[in-house]
Amino acid sequence: MAKTKRIEGVLSPVVTPFKRDYAPDTERFVRHCRWLLKSGCAGLAVFGTNSEANSMSVAEKRALLEALVSAGLPPTALMPGTGHSALSDSIELTRAAVKLGCAGVLMLPPFYYKGVSDEGLYRNFSEVIERVGDERLQLYLYHIPPVAQVGISLDLIDRLLSKYPGIVAGVKDSSGDWSNTRAMCEQFARRGFDVFAGSEVFLLDTLRAGGKGCITATGNINPGPIDKVFRNWRTAEADRLQAEITATRKIVQKQPMIAALKASIAHFGNDPQWKTCRPPLVELTAQQEKDLITELKASRFSMPGLSS
Amino acid sequence: MAKTKRIEGVLSPVVTPFKRDYAPDTERFVRHCRWLLKSGCAGLAVFGTNSEANSMSVAEKRALLEALVSAGLPPTALMPGTGHSALSDSIELTRAAVKLGCAGVLMLPPFYYKGVSDEGLYRNFSEVIERVGDERLQLYLYHIPPVAQVGISLDLIDRLLSKYPGIVAGVKDSSGDWSNTRAMCEQFARRGFDVFAGSEVFLLDTLRAGGKGCITATGNINPGPIDKVFRNWRTAEADRLQAEITATRKIVQKQPMIAALKASIAHFGNDPQWKTCRPPLVELTAQQEKDLITELKASRFSMPGLSS
Repeated sequence: MAKTKRIEGVLSPVVTPFKRDYAPDTERFVRHCRWLLKSGCAGLAVFGTNSEANSMSVAEKRALLEALVSAGLPPTALMPGTGHSALSDSIELTRAAVKLGCAGVLMLPPFYYKGVSDEGLYRNFSEVIERVGDERLQLYLYHIPPVAQVGISLDLIDRLLSKYPGIVAGVKDSSGDWSNTRAMCEQFARRGFDVFAGSEVFLLDTLRAGGKGCITATGNINPGPIDKVFRNWRTAEADRLQAEITATRKIVQKQPMIAALKASIAHFGNDPQWKTCRPPLVELTAQQEKDLITELKASRFSMPGLSS
Repeated sequence: MAKTKRIEGVLSPVVTPFKRDYAPDTERFVRHCRWLLKSGCAGLAVFGTNSEANSMSVAEKRALLEALVSAGLPPTALMPGTGHSALSDSIELTRAAVKLGCAGVLMLPPFYYKGVSDEGLYRNFSEVIERVGDERLQLYLYHIPPVAQVGISLDLIDRLLSKYPGIVAGVKDSSGDWSNTRAMCEQFARRGFDVFAGSEVFLLDTLRAGGKGCITATGNINPGPIDKVFRNWRTAEADRLQAEITATRKIVQKQPMIAALKASIAHFGNDPQWKTCRPPLVELTAQQEKDLITELKASRFSMPGLSS
């Protein structure tokens, strides 16, 4: 079978709803994914950092992914996170994603051992690619040193891209360091390597540098306006539109991000169960929640079409 | 059923042998565990940091643990590491360990998300204890901030110990900060909380402060002399014996620790396959290996009874 068309535009690292007992809530998850796709997201990077993915087992993630596809969401819009600290877990979930026809996978480096070598990381990604052994695989590297502590260097990208062209498809750069994102665009975009900013704050800059979009936390609550920047980036309006989404981002990131996204969905969707985070994360305090919602409302933020 | 007797003395975080294809090598694993127990180890902290445990899936670890018990190794000497970044994984492996009759489990905090609150970590450990729901559980907290980046504070220990006395059984302190280990002994030893140093460098100090032993990487290759410090810590010889094991430790830790342990076992056991590390870790370079072995031999280091 052929590879699916590459996703461009805005992807949301979909937050995962949990029930009172911390079990993943499949019904709310499917509903939120549907809302995102009709509200501006080109793709769903389920099982990202903002999804609390690393607080879930492979079996839990497989079940959620299968539920999405069973519910009729298009696999061609899915880019699940499949990188784990355990090589065998990364292989298992990547294989499952490819079999389901997902457009790609977004892979963290193994993140427990620190100070590891590029050679060790190369072997990790190479083993996954070889073991999955499927030409449909499109692997996006996930660079997020502030959380993973283990990063993906330009040298490592070069080596992987040379060995696996077509399979190594791009990167999400969540370093927060624009000079790094720009270097990725400059060095690899012409080799068919799709660069996504890890925050919409860098969306316009990334597109102007030859990147393909962004995969951003706030895509969970503000997908329409972010998509508008993507669709209008060559127009005279672009900088004004960018300033608007940056302003919203800055409100949300005053609070712990994942809990803030969930509190926003809970509030604007009138569905308090959404607030639950799985340990070790916790929900916002009442004061944090009040500050967030007050400021969002004052900015005339809305989530059109969201309902419980 | 009753709890098993608490382990005291020297525990080894057993290195995990891998085959050429990076699959866990059960036969070599069982053999090495047997050698450790007859060579001075009071217990086996399988699936620790030095075991490359976080590079293995829960299923792989369960299979290795069951193989040990099937091979006749006493579960009362086993303290498997069962802490994962995913809550559901921690519950699964802890439950399996308790069912097999293991003396205890050594639990990392969830280590992907950084800067998490004590409340979130409390919920994580509390959920595991409640879900496992077995009075036989003896849970040792694993504090290793240099690697996990997420630590276990004295306040968190106090809270867990107050809520789950008898179940929260102790700690391995791999902070490398003696003042922290001492504080753990001073504040919690009298409450039935067993403190283990994370390196034999602190063994004598830990025992003198009221701790119970050490769980140490080099326990994999030097268990006899380390155990000798434990057995003689109240004697006039103690400081001299401690100086000897500290000297050996200093030779080994000049190289990347896990690869160095494996290279030592490969050399002194005449079994080169032992050198293999699972990605993202890599074996020593030829030069590193030569330096290590030369210096160990010059110090008259040996591994009596080791054979392939």
